[in-house]
Amino acid sequence: MSKVMAINAGSSSLKFQLLTMPEEDVVTKGLVERIGLNNSIFQISVNGEKNETITDIPNHEVAVKLLLEKLTGLGIIESLDEINAIGHRVVHGGELFNDSVLITDEVLAGIESVSELAPLHNPANIVGVKAFKEILPNVPSIAVFDTAFHQTMPEESFLYSLPYEYYKDFGIRKYGFHGTSHKYVSERAAELLDRPLDQLRILSCHLGNGASIAAIKGGKSVDTSMGFTPLAGVTMGTRSGNLDPALIPFIMEKTGQTAAEVLDTLNKRSGLLGITGFSSDLRDIEEKAKAGDERAETALNVFTSRIHKYVGSYAARMSGLDAIVFTAGIGENSDVIRERVLRGLEFMGVYFDPSLNQVRGKEAFINYPHSPVKIIIIPTNEEVMIARDAIRLSGL
Amino acid sequence: MSKVMAINAGSSSLKFQLLTMPEEDVVTKGLVERIGLNNSIFQISVNGEKNETITDIPNHEVAVKLLLEKLTGLGIIESLDEINAIGHRVVHGGELFNDSVLITDEVLAGIESVSELAPLHNPANIVGVKAFKEILPNVPSIAVFDTAFHQTMPEESFLYSLPYEYYKDFGIRKYGFHGTSHKYVSERAAELLDRPLDQLRILSCHLGNGASIAAIKGGKSVDTSMGFTPLAGVTMGTRSGNLDPALIPFIMEKTGQTAAEVLDTLNKRSGLLGITGFSSDLRDIEEKAKAGDERAETALNVFTSRIHKYVGSYAARMSGLDAIVFTAGIGENSDVIRERVLRGLEFMGVYFDPSLNQVRGKEAFINYPHSPVKIIIIPTNEEVMIARDAIRLSGL
Repeated sequence: MSKVMAINAGSSSLKFQLLTMPEEDVVTKGLVERIGLNNSIFQISVNGEKNETITDIPNHEVAVKLLLEKLTGLGIIESLDEINAIGHRVVHGGELFNDSVLITDEVLAGIESVSELAPLHNPANIVGVKAFKEILPNVPSIAVFDTAFHQTMPEESFLYSLPYEYYKDFGIRKYGFHGTSHKYVSERAAELLDRPLDQLRILSCHLGNGASIAAIKGGKSVDTSMGFTPLAGVTMGTRSGNLDPALIPFIMEKTGQTAAEVLDTLNKRSGLLGITGFSSDLRDIEEKAKAGDERAETALNVFTSRIHKYVGSYAARMSGLDAIVFTAGIGENSDVIRERVLRGLEFMGVYFDPSLNQVRGKEAFINYPHSPVKIIIIPTNEEVMIARDAIRLSGL
Repeated sequence: MSKVMAINAGSSSLKFQLLTMPEEDVVTKGLVERIGLNNSIFQISVNGEKNETITDIPNHEVAVKLLLEKLTGLGIIESLDEINAIGHRVVHGGELFNDSVLITDEVLAGIESVSELAPLHNPANIVGVKAFKEILPNVPSIAVFDTAFHQTMPEESFLYSLPYEYYKDFGIRKYGFHGTSHKYVSERAAELLDRPLDQLRILSCHLGNGASIAAIKGGKSVDTSMGFTPLAGVTMGTRSGNLDPALIPFIMEKTGQTAAEVLDTLNKRSGLLGITGFSSDLRDIEEKAKAGDERAETALNVFTSRIHKYVGSYAARMSGLDAIVFTAGIGENSDVIRERVLRGLEFMGVYFDPSLNQVRGKEAFINYPHSPVKIIIIPTNEEVMIARDAIRLSGL
């Protein structure tokens, strides 16, 4: 039996989960927040109970040290030697990485070289990698990229209709994100359908605060809604998704914002928050819509019609669908959203059962038995994917 | 019998067509180019022969005067009194105009008030209107808007996922263009199908140097691929179509272009021209692709896969399709493009017949007889639509 630590490091946070493999049981999980600020928060679960410490954590190394102390101090593991591998979520692998990889100095340099493609995320991921390397130098580290799964997209999916040299010189293309999640749910869907993955055409809807849709044919991503960055695609909590690109200069002129400020608006003050004016949280919005709030109703309509159109678009992309999967916070929990996305798709063999749809946060088929296209809710599990890849690539 | 002049005025050009109504026969047509430059070119057809004059035409009024002189001078009509109405194509009607309209001073002020939404086009259209008003003050003028047909789009189609006040304060929304063409072909499709338009779900592909797709349900536009401007949607001759909006600031940073310069790049040096590096003309590209040029092949794949995905997307939008229509230069003439767009859509009832598809520039069904979705080539005719509206609104 091995233990793998799955790590997701942000600029001021560190999310962790320790799993036993191959059982895939969660030993503990937790979160460090406000790293680099005062009154940092350290949370870890011990036998299902949350243990919280408030203390100043000046940097990620201190966070990692504290984590390792707690693991033994709270009796979660007996010795740090039990940790056999560390899997790090890394947002952007550019075109360098089409699979997870054992982290060497060369790999780290590679991750750094594509950092300009994800300036908010990759540097933080790298800080996390280095902090563990410093403290547990002999434990293998594995990088698991959000973009890697989508590297199978063909050129007609990933190329923008821009001067071709922008692709060659600046790496401007569609990369796609949420790859670890799309991969997990597509593999799990094949298991649940009891059919070989390489014969399936799966439409995966990862709907959380960030949201993306992927067309997965024979286990390979052939298209996805996010683009060069995670801003593109469908409406999200605070992100705009696709826009007429001519709007950026127009908004700059009208509001006096710089291009960078407009980008910030599109990332943080748009999407569901922008339309409703009051919340990026779909639960609030569903509640207000039910109470008759028109802007909330509009936001639901915009959000679901965009996804609905992607279902048709990617069905065309794959010449039909075998399964539609819903995952992540909204996808797993909101029957309202699923229903609106799925309504009116009978013409392409999608027959969903409204009564089966009344389910939250667990694996379930929600199609009528005769539906040619199966519809499945699958809670995502990126940590398990990270742990699996860590085991595979560290040779354990 | 009435005669109507259909006018399309650009910043340095004036396109005209004189039609008899209700016969809809073309009496003459022509084009004035290089207005405001030296060696302006005036072309007019006389009994099918092209008559060309090179002379300096300093402004649109002079162009209109010359046109009227030629009409009588060349014996095309006997007297200017035969012109009963003038229909002007106007690109942008904003939210003010959801139908064509008889031009009054108030209407002209309205067209001017939305000019910031189409700064390259509306002012030129207005110059054309004023030139005719000056010279033929007693002939009714009618404005026919590219945007009007799409004003039936519901909020979930036209609203961007931006701060809501951008819509209210700045008119930022999807307007859509090519409305006159989409309206013409959808009405004609209903005739050819011998079915009532209000019972049809039509996917209209207007594929020219500019290209847009429209979802037309019951005769009303419910969605379209162009957006706030004609830059959005599918790949075009020189326009990028949809992009991750985050690319604008990135391209600015990488290339040192201002936002306005990037916009210019996206409008004039992107699309098919950008990908191939050698041409925006699809005929050149098809030829090169046939000869084995990889970038030309890539451009065809990008172009057609974007349209293909819109077919699926808008089929979902309307819960299925009754007909797909191809129109405009590429749509009417390129069997290669039509085939690539239509391949692999059998799952949604689209069965096209490759042998019937070998047709250029004329009305034709290209589906197998058993195909639930009919596929029709319909040469567009915006001038006829302009003339019809001119008759209807001038009370002739």
